[in-house]
Amino acid sequence: MTGPLSIDRDRLWRRLEHSARIGKAGETGLCRLALSDEDRVIRDWFVEQAQSLGCQVRYDSAGNIFARRPGTDPDLPPIAIGSHLDTQPSGGRYDGILGVLAGLEVLQTLTARAISPRHPIEIIDWTNEEGSRFSPAMLGSGVFAGIFTPDYADSRTDKQGRRFDAEVARIGYRGDATPHPVAAYFELHIEQGPVLEAEGLEIGVVTGVQGIRWFDVELIGDCCHAGTTPMALRRDPVPALARLIDAVYEIGNSDPGRSLSTVGIIEAQPGSRNTVPGAIRLTVDLRHPDDTALDDMEQRLLSLAGSDCTIARIWRSAPVQFDQRAVRSVRSSAKKLGFSHRDIVSGAGHDAVHVASVAPTAMIFVPCENGISHNPRESITPEQAENGANVLLHAVLDYDGGTAR
Amino acid sequence: MTGPLSIDRDRLWRRLEHSARIGKAGETGLCRLALSDEDRVIRDWFVEQAQSLGCQVRYDSAGNIFARRPGTDPDLPPIAIGSHLDTQPSGGRYDGILGVLAGLEVLQTLTARAISPRHPIEIIDWTNEEGSRFSPAMLGSGVFAGIFTPDYADSRTDKQGRRFDAEVARIGYRGDATPHPVAAYFELHIEQGPVLEAEGLEIGVVTGVQGIRWFDVELIGDCCHAGTTPMALRRDPVPALARLIDAVYEIGNSDPGRSLSTVGIIEAQPGSRNTVPGAIRLTVDLRHPDDTALDDMEQRLLSLAGSDCTIARIWRSAPVQFDQRAVRSVRSSAKKLGFSHRDIVSGAGHDAVHVASVAPTAMIFVPCENGISHNPRESITPEQAENGANVLLHAVLDYDGGTAR
Repeated sequence: MTGPLSIDRDRLWRRLEHSARIGKAGETGLCRLALSDEDRVIRDWFVEQAQSLGCQVRYDSAGNIFARRPGTDPDLPPIAIGSHLDTQPSGGRYDGILGVLAGLEVLQTLTARAISPRHPIEIIDWTNEEGSRFSPAMLGSGVFAGIFTPDYADSRTDKQGRRFDAEVARIGYRGDATPHPVAAYFELHIEQGPVLEAEGLEIGVVTGVQGIRWFDVELIGDCCHAGTTPMALRRDPVPALARLIDAVYEIGNSDPGRSLSTVGIIEAQPGSRNTVPGAIRLTVDLRHPDDTALDDMEQRLLSLAGSDCTIARIWRSAPVQFDQRAVRSVRSSAKKLGFSHRDIVSGAGHDAVHVASVAPTAMIFVPCENGISHNPRESITPEQAENGANVLLHAVLDYDGGTAR
Repeated sequence: MTGPLSIDRDRLWRRLEHSARIGKAGETGLCRLALSDEDRVIRDWFVEQAQSLGCQVRYDSAGNIFARRPGTDPDLPPIAIGSHLDTQPSGGRYDGILGVLAGLEVLQTLTARAISPRHPIEIIDWTNEEGSRFSPAMLGSGVFAGIFTPDYADSRTDKQGRRFDAEVARIGYRGDATPHPVAAYFELHIEQGPVLEAEGLEIGVVTGVQGIRWFDVELIGDCCHAGTTPMALRRDPVPALARLIDAVYEIGNSDPGRSLSTVGIIEAQPGSRNTVPGAIRLTVDLRHPDDTALDDMEQRLLSLAGSDCTIARIWRSAPVQFDQRAVRSVRSSAKKLGFSHRDIVSGAGHDAVHVASVAPTAMIFVPCENGISHNPRESITPEQAENGANVLLHAVLDYDGGTAR
């Protein structure tokens, strides 16, 4: 056989098409909420597939599924491949799913070629990554990584008041596995953004996840009649909104390609056509891969506060730097396979963020059409799926220590 | 007796205090919606007061009350004094009410001093000026002036679906009076704005009502993820909002003291903290006393429209110039009585706007505390009420042709 070891594109695509029928919503959408009946169906199928590939399957209290095939060295912890099979209520067919099914494909390729890595290979389906049914998102991986206690996860409820622990048990995935050592964790995911497509690249070598800080801003004025109050006698918060927006976007544009600022919510109060607003409430979302740079951005934002403007930080998520050796395995595999690629920082959260706190971690991005995700229009080509799975395969083997060619 | 003829301040204030008890809401507020039981109580009292001063009282189909005392010349139409006794749901004690009760005070002063103008004097209570219960505002005066047909008014319904005609009849004010000639119409009103107070003036000589134009604006972008989309690849409508606000306020500040611009509603869509908005909807209210200047302001606003910005005018109200002779009667009375005064253009609509289309019309403003109106905190002093009523008295006599001193 010529060329490097490769997964089977058609087989991977068939598995993606099978998944796309379970919880199908509309022509191309999926609604497969965490721990729903649809989630149970895809989980049962995934377990059966993994078992047919020689895996032992265990679950933990959060319903995370660990499907492990032994390696040649019984003393080594597994190299894990994971992502999630749940979706947004109006989600697409690839977000999360590609990462889990590519794990099956990697395992099946190794089996077909009789390649036996030193480390066990473990495929993981993390519970409730999306956070659409139970809040917060990335709940299962958070329990595994010790970010959340099992009790905390158990007590989460959905909108109907159904508890997380009861729903895990209801669909048959309440297990007694406890957190175990992981040699390395690799997650293949669609980019969910437009960068790779815009630059015509095939692979994103994800070096980490950016930091996020959320702020509530209120601009304060005095309500008055739009017809009877001369401009000079108004305390109108609207012109101040323009100044604030300018400053927020200056912050977001201060480090092109890395810094981000977003004003997602803007509401004038009381919201009457012929009344000068008494207040304007807005939100600011600041992101940067580097926490020190994010500190600077936050300081610049907070310096805009004054007697007519309050700014309060309501949430922060620190940036994550992935493991250098694991990232190197991804980058060298992309290179070896001849894919155009770039280092990229993930803008969105992933299970890998939590796993990175307990194991060497890296991620692989493939482009998705127009960067669209969390949407039935989410789209990738079979070739893009294949490319990502091949980089995953070779990164695992590279990390395993060069046991395969 | 020394000094010019004067109304009785205490008597006027007692009438205002009596009114403040009918529909009292909180310590200083009034809730006396048009055609409510409270409106009936104040109307019954007003009619009784007018009749005791020798007036004949009639109603029209819209429930407008016309209380007329004959003049010395039976061929002359009446000089009318009017405003409204209804209030906002959370209104104050003077808006509208001062103008009607000052009419009673003018009549009582003339009676007490045995002064008989040539013209009949007619005090008018217009129905549903506020528009809080039945839309549109200034409905009764609009019917009198032929702006609205009686059928149109009759068919208006409140939030509970009760018809205007049924409610007029229910409180006993459905009459058969038809529109009649009016020699001149004078309306005393609180300013509802801060100008007179800010300039330390006692009287506003209202020369007209400014024009108003309302616009709906939509800034169009593309929704995308706040974390995964670099600034340079976004189509974000928020920076465009800042530019639009700057331009709108430049228009509003273009003719200081006359031009006005207000952005009362601003809403980012879909309104999610970590999503770049796909659209921002806002309203613009432009006002100017001169229609040509308002045309220019509108042109400047419309020139901001483009592929990412739609601007649609949804309503306009042309400026009104009050009658020069009637305005002169107000101005010369303020001067004769020694009040500090200035010409002023009303920023808000009043019944006088409608009446001006069928009779020579003028208005008198007195300051109100901090310009606050449509609010329980609405406040004037007994002296301010007295000043306004005295200017009203002398303006009526001046217009009548100098039959009194």
